[in-house]
Amino acid sequence: MSHDAILLTPGPLTTTLRTKLAMLRDWGSWDVEFNQVTARVRRSLLQIIHGEDSHAVVPLQGSGTFSIEAAVTTLVPQNGHILVLDNGAYCKRAAKISTMMGRRCTLMPFADHEAVSPSALQQQLAADSSITHVVLIHCETGAGVLNPLQAVADVCAAFKKGLIVDAMSSFAAIEIDARKTHFDALIAASGKCLEGVAGMGFVFIRKAVLDGCAGQSQSLAMDLYDQHAYMEKTGQWRFTPPTHVVVALAEAIAQFEEAGGQPARLARYTSNCQTLIAGMKALGFKPFLEPSVQAPIIVTFLAPAHPNYEFRRFYDAAKARGFIMYPGKLTQVETFRVGCIGAIGPVEMAQAVHAVALALNDLGVASGEPG
Amino acid sequence: MSHDAILLTPGPLTTTLRTKLAMLRDWGSWDVEFNQVTARVRRSLLQIIHGEDSHAVVPLQGSGTFSIEAAVTTLVPQNGHILVLDNGAYCKRAAKISTMMGRRCTLMPFADHEAVSPSALQQQLAADSSITHVVLIHCETGAGVLNPLQAVADVCAAFKKGLIVDAMSSFAAIEIDARKTHFDALIAASGKCLEGVAGMGFVFIRKAVLDGCAGQSQSLAMDLYDQHAYMEKTGQWRFTPPTHVVVALAEAIAQFEEAGGQPARLARYTSNCQTLIAGMKALGFKPFLEPSVQAPIIVTFLAPAHPNYEFRRFYDAAKARGFIMYPGKLTQVETFRVGCIGAIGPVEMAQAVHAVALALNDLGVASGEPG
Repeated sequence: MSHDAILLTPGPLTTTLRTKLAMLRDWGSWDVEFNQVTARVRRSLLQIIHGEDSHAVVPLQGSGTFSIEAAVTTLVPQNGHILVLDNGAYCKRAAKISTMMGRRCTLMPFADHEAVSPSALQQQLAADSSITHVVLIHCETGAGVLNPLQAVADVCAAFKKGLIVDAMSSFAAIEIDARKTHFDALIAASGKCLEGVAGMGFVFIRKAVLDGCAGQSQSLAMDLYDQHAYMEKTGQWRFTPPTHVVVALAEAIAQFEEAGGQPARLARYTSNCQTLIAGMKALGFKPFLEPSVQAPIIVTFLAPAHPNYEFRRFYDAAKARGFIMYPGKLTQVETFRVGCIGAIGPVEMAQAVHAVALALNDLGVASGEPG
Repeated sequence: MSHDAILLTPGPLTTTLRTKLAMLRDWGSWDVEFNQVTARVRRSLLQIIHGEDSHAVVPLQGSGTFSIEAAVTTLVPQNGHILVLDNGAYCKRAAKISTMMGRRCTLMPFADHEAVSPSALQQQLAADSSITHVVLIHCETGAGVLNPLQAVADVCAAFKKGLIVDAMSSFAAIEIDARKTHFDALIAASGKCLEGVAGMGFVFIRKAVLDGCAGQSQSLAMDLYDQHAYMEKTGQWRFTPPTHVVVALAEAIAQFEEAGGQPARLARYTSNCQTLIAGMKALGFKPFLEPSVQAPIIVTFLAPAHPNYEFRRFYDAAKARGFIMYPGKLTQVETFRVGCIGAIGPVEMAQAVHAVALALNDLGVASGEPG
């Protein structure tokens, strides 16, 4: 195909041409013009969560996982105890990160098709006073579940525990209001719902806890306290920033704001998600999740029962028609995933469903119906 | 100015339009086409150092500093002892990285206008058998010194010590031949002499030591053993890659190869450096370094003695004429730096010298002569 395939993935995702065109310039990382871009991005990010009074935002080079690791090493003292509310693969990754860095970490298991339970968290915090921090994945893209951020934050606040939120794939699409929701850190990245390109993350840190984080990190590159202090002092990043990624994010944010910000983005993604699910159901497919816990970010479908179905061939056939899907990440049941995010709308989602129909036909699979 | 300023900085630097145009597409990070780009980049990188038989190369998200930290945490055991040959700011940063991660680290000081001494290293290794690893900055861009990689590597090999080389700003310009030069790890990044955009680093690791590195890292994101194992198994990056940065690097490498590889790049940068130094000397400026230790990467000049000179105004005046310089990084003496690298040639360097002449005139500084 001469036309680029549309990425139905949870990031990197399809970005606008305007966002990509911003990368056609070279910027000096020490220069005031680039510092102004960084400052503008930071201001806009804080506005999105209404966190200007309560939080600082610290950008960091690397993928979102680097920012999660940075949040843990910066905020959690060596003798801290982290409780991870676990309903999926990204929860387990957060626990692995914490354990490798020498932090005591407990996984609290939930089913991967359900949201985590604030009341179970309450019982756990009441039972184990050694826990210092709770980690929540806001949207667990392993299955696509939206977890109850507000209720979890309320429990953590009541017990005076630090809350670290991985909002990688929810930030800028799902409402997060720092004036109402109490958290110590919240992490997201450039190449997700803001529709920038991948290459940097950012961490919102509550100002009240930031000062206490000095000297806690065992990593220089990932020390968000140090990164923040240097940026406040000089306007610059401590180490070489991914300049083209930063200016692309600035351009993506400008479009986000022009289009109406988070409510408008949520409306578009919700429409994408509804178009997708309705179309796929008409082909016989069944979503893995109940509608009540389904985030409008990424949808997990059960694999068709038909013996001709094979994900690799299905993927290739859909790709040949211009749409790139995503493999499943569940261990107990065969699935595949389709993202609803990126610079696409219901028109592209309807075309995607049509591409899936043609792909099924290629494979000789009569219906998407699972076993 | 409507024309972009030329970056006379040690990276991010000026890239070709062809390199930037490669970023006008979106790539699925899971897709085979992107995996092929990653594989091609890795093959090319190994060829540049003739390391196909001896080394593996592991790309990593983030700036070059992230890759240095990753090399230390992956290669040096918790009870290791690192000796850093210190003749500048980047050496001190490597030591700080090592110390923060809990590795015992000793700084061996040298003057910042001289290369480090292989014979002094020999004495130190003979005197202290607890040292397990030596860290060398190949080109110390703090002042611009080229350090004697081959001689240092020979000493390390004789004492059977691991050598970790920060070749951030020398790789692809200065010859490095893994068949002749023995090292355990060598680190560089996308936005330096390969003339890609910033956003990823890569670490060459000797195959013979890689297997012994399993489980040594205390960071998940920076575990190069794990990154390598996953990439070998799946062709993919473990965590979201900066896809646009990777494809820009692939395009930059294609141009590097077409132009004649490392010898051609060295010839161009040498010509840039000679044009710069000759022109600046004619304006009265004096390079900080003797020619014998000056790498053709970045040149440190002593600040003019004239009382009207002020770096900030000098910088702005040169920038108004289209050239972005770089501040000095020495603590004892006032300097500024001018990079010789990036997609520029002697024509641009001569124009840069002319811009400096006009900038001096703006400031009412008669000559670049230092005190």
